[in-house]
Amino acid sequence: MRTLRVGLAQINTTVGDLEGNVAKALQYVERARDLGVDIVSFPELTVTGYPPEDLLLRPSFVRDNLEALEAVVKGCGGITAVVGFVDLPGGRQGGDGDIYNSAAVIHDGRLADVYHKQRLPNYGVFDEMRYFRPGEGYPVYTVAGVGVGVNVCEDIWRPGDPTRSQALARAQVIVNISGSPYHAGKRGVRQQMLATRAGDYGVFVCYTNQVGGQDELVFDGGSMVLGPAGQLVAQAAMFEEELLVCDLNLEEASKTRLHGPRRRRERSAHAAEVRQVALSDGPFVAAKPPLERRVAPPLEAEAEVYAALVTGTRDYVGKTGFEKVVIALSGGIDSSLVAAIAVDAIGREGVVGVSMPSRYSSEGSIKDARELAERLGIELTIIPIEPTHAAYLEVLDRAFAGTEPGTAEENIQSRIRGNIIMALSNKFGWLVLTTGNKSEFATGYATLYGDMAGGYAVIKDVPKTLVYRLARYRNSRQDGPVIPEGVISKPPSAELKPGQLDQDTLPPYEELDSVLEAYVEDDRSVDEIVAMGHDRDLVVRVIQMVNRNEYKRRQAPPGVKITPRAFGRDRRVPIANRYKGF
Amino acid sequence: MRTLRVGLAQINTTVGDLEGNVAKALQYVERARDLGVDIVSFPELTVTGYPPEDLLLRPSFVRDNLEALEAVVKGCGGITAVVGFVDLPGGRQGGDGDIYNSAAVIHDGRLADVYHKQRLPNYGVFDEMRYFRPGEGYPVYTVAGVGVGVNVCEDIWRPGDPTRSQALARAQVIVNISGSPYHAGKRGVRQQMLATRAGDYGVFVCYTNQVGGQDELVFDGGSMVLGPAGQLVAQAAMFEEELLVCDLNLEEASKTRLHGPRRRRERSAHAAEVRQVALSDGPFVAAKPPLERRVAPPLEAEAEVYAALVTGTRDYVGKTGFEKVVIALSGGIDSSLVAAIAVDAIGREGVVGVSMPSRYSSEGSIKDARELAERLGIELTIIPIEPTHAAYLEVLDRAFAGTEPGTAEENIQSRIRGNIIMALSNKFGWLVLTTGNKSEFATGYATLYGDMAGGYAVIKDVPKTLVYRLARYRNSRQDGPVIPEGVISKPPSAELKPGQLDQDTLPPYEELDSVLEAYVEDDRSVDEIVAMGHDRDLVVRVIQMVNRNEYKRRQAPPGVKITPRAFGRDRRVPIANRYKGF
Repeated sequence: MRTLRVGLAQINTTVGDLEGNVAKALQYVERARDLGVDIVSFPELTVTGYPPEDLLLRPSFVRDNLEALEAVVKGCGGITAVVGFVDLPGGRQGGDGDIYNSAAVIHDGRLADVYHKQRLPNYGVFDEMRYFRPGEGYPVYTVAGVGVGVNVCEDIWRPGDPTRSQALARAQVIVNISGSPYHAGKRGVRQQMLATRAGDYGVFVCYTNQVGGQDELVFDGGSMVLGPAGQLVAQAAMFEEELLVCDLNLEEASKTRLHGPRRRRERSAHAAEVRQVALSDGPFVAAKPPLERRVAPPLEAEAEVYAALVTGTRDYVGKTGFEKVVIALSGGIDSSLVAAIAVDAIGREGVVGVSMPSRYSSEGSIKDARELAERLGIELTIIPIEPTHAAYLEVLDRAFAGTEPGTAEENIQSRIRGNIIMALSNKFGWLVLTTGNKSEFATGYATLYGDMAGGYAVIKDVPKTLVYRLARYRNSRQDGPVIPEGVISKPPSAELKPGQLDQDTLPPYEELDSVLEAYVEDDRSVDEIVAMGHDRDLVVRVIQMVNRNEYKRRQAPPGVKITPRAFGRDRRVPIANRYKGF
Repeated sequence: MRTLRVGLAQINTTVGDLEGNVAKALQYVERARDLGVDIVSFPELTVTGYPPEDLLLRPSFVRDNLEALEAVVKGCGGITAVVGFVDLPGGRQGGDGDIYNSAAVIHDGRLADVYHKQRLPNYGVFDEMRYFRPGEGYPVYTVAGVGVGVNVCEDIWRPGDPTRSQALARAQVIVNISGSPYHAGKRGVRQQMLATRAGDYGVFVCYTNQVGGQDELVFDGGSMVLGPAGQLVAQAAMFEEELLVCDLNLEEASKTRLHGPRRRRERSAHAAEVRQVALSDGPFVAAKPPLERRVAPPLEAEAEVYAALVTGTRDYVGKTGFEKVVIALSGGIDSSLVAAIAVDAIGREGVVGVSMPSRYSSEGSIKDARELAERLGIELTIIPIEPTHAAYLEVLDRAFAGTEPGTAEENIQSRIRGNIIMALSNKFGWLVLTTGNKSEFATGYATLYGDMAGGYAVIKDVPKTLVYRLARYRNSRQDGPVIPEGVISKPPSAELKPGQLDQDTLPPYEELDSVLEAYVEDDRSVDEIVAMGHDRDLVVRVIQMVNRNEYKRRQAPPGVKITPRAFGRDRRVPIANRYKGF
């Protein structure tokens, strides 16, 4: 049986860490070689990490990346490797300033060819047209006697070229290297799309995705191999580094083509732009160690989101160089969930809880925070805010004379907590994790410089209803219920005045989250949202809250994107904005 | 003499205020008609305001903009008008989802044609490839017997099409409608570029620019008409709304062409894509009121930047619906300059000063703040922070036991001030203007949630050395020296510990600002900056400060962009970033 052994090196790179990324790639090259892999592929922009953003506008960065690539090339003896980097043709001698998002095709220790990404995404969180020139041409490499087309991420997300021309030019395998950010359920979308490409063009698709967190993005891995009938041949885990190795049965690909008359009638309009590049007729290693078929099982919906949050938090903490985080524990469900995520991400030794009770904090809340800390096994410091609170009210007494207590007084308490937790952060070098959820960020039901103050907003893209589901999921796991049941069952409250409940100000969360998703993620109009069955006044009120609070979100810390449309680079709206038509 | 009377309506639109923008445009149409204008032009995206950002992804917004355009069309009887809007062909019946950044060519109350912008900027602050499809084809309109080519902003910033094909297809006048954001000195760059286009193609260029502030951007107006020899024929004021009217001497354009043999040999490769659209052979009005030649004088360098800051502040306050602002007056030069700008922007009745002295505030600082407030004629409230400061130190006493006082303690003071000023903001509905400059933002020499807390950071893009020049400029004006001389001459200090000076932590500002400009605005490497004559250790230290403090800038309020590269959407760098090669 004619086979090609492919290795998909799903690694966690760090933006800007050229040396570290090269060292990691070379470790995986060595492992792949030991397993008799013919061709090993890495994620998009392996060398620089993805996305490097405006570092790409720095000539020294681009040159250093070319130098780093040379180190990878030297380490790739006895194997073929596909490695992402930024190409600047003629770059070591200066270059002409046109850079490309590229795949280096390395064969036996030499840079055999370079492929330039052709489709540059410029939507959602992507800005690739800001940096790159699109590539041209359709190279097909003969690796161990097999035709292989290489392309990069977005290239394969639409039907047609380059994949089509490569397949028609006798590529039987398409190696796509990707940096595809996570949102809930995206793995399935990807698999369906890749299965369609594999089936339509009668090829194996080897899709290598990045894994790990980078600022607001999490890359979920889940690299996969699809067969020429669209079937899933192999799949790596989500959210973990892995070298996925599998043998492609090329007779199967040939047979599919033999039986596929529709394909035979097709001609590429771009046949002239195909380049055939011969690398090797046979494998480096004839006798290969046996393999087991690997198809990592998919995760359940809540487990998947939870793992994304853990990954994003772990990598933000690690990649920015922190060792400890501090979290304000109110006894509420948001901070309890964040604490659980933090412990799962960096271990309980790295997590400090602070309880900052005020005159309005209930006994239950303080007890709940304490119980949570005990169950998680984390340190809990208690710093009451009452003396400071009283001092503020006194110095503001004259300025506030004759006014009724309101939001201003409530926010003072929240900002005292912000100041205290930042003081701990500054003093001990701890990263502050904030605990606001997406429903709060959307409606502005949060205090700027108060509970919004901190370095990373773990659940800022998690709607409140999903916060509950995630808490229940975490409690259902074999490693035990960590969030006290009382925290989940009591009605949510900011506890900034006596008897306050979220639902005094906000609609019930089930309804609120439905309206928010329609408006924020789906760009629906008032009429459309009303047609979904919501009350018009309520819809208008929610939308006004969203629009009015853009200024707060603009000053929010970064946090993990888990929905198709997060606040931040994903949703760029003006602050000064008089659009009222919704 | 054969002439065309053109009107350039340099108006201040507001993003999303479709009704308001339409009403304003129609006022200018009426004024233009009264002056016998043949063709009046408006800024880019007149109807929606510019830049509308992700509002463009909202179908209802695009549809409402089409409806708003209809109102403009109806109001344009007896004149030709070029009005910016978002085209969605077939949009009133749904459209196919491809939108264009467009110019409506309206003739005598009917929509005669639509031009689609062809070059979409996607660099710096621009993201137009995120939204728009590029247009095709080269329409030339006959207006009052004269060939007129219409194009949009970026279309004219590069040589070649569409301007070239339009000129070769007998356009004698190019009407370009623009939304070109300000940075210091850009007016001259624009004039030189437009003069080159006019001269190269032997045409009049009528360049209508937007005026006014929108979030971080200021549009400086300065609309202009260039003649076919590249000469400046007319120019509107900077930073003010204006209807610039002038008569184009078309015989002059003909004569230039008659004498220009090089031009005759040229052929457009796109002649087939030219469309000739006849609108009218003669003017609506034969007898026109006489005009004076209008060429607004350029502003001096400091006056120009100062006016940009005033404009940005005035429009942010106004367009977000505030009536009053509050500023923490430390007695230092930054807050003094911001207070002067605020008073010039919205009047002294709209500005409140707060002095929040601590145990470390010098007598001189309190006196200086008081004197500044007197000179500006603004209210000054004094709220000492000492009692609150003491309360914090007490509640943190146990947590901080055994540590030396340092940044944590200093930041507490700054954050108390942040909390107090935000309490005033929340209580009375005042917008907080923050006072940090670009040198501070760059190096992180500012306290997050402390002095960085507020709604608009007026001078965040002004380097400290320019802060001094602007203060001197403001004091030199005829309306009197408003900033006490002592504020300008004393060494800068944050006054967060005894005897503290900025220069204990930072290099001298002259040197710091030179390194910062090279690194932040020009993307120079360490070696290049050292070659400029700076000490290597100092350069490395400054660059590390810049890189380490990206997380603070990400949470900063918006503020006026006045340099070619501001922090914010102009400079998108990762927070988690291990690039050390500089």
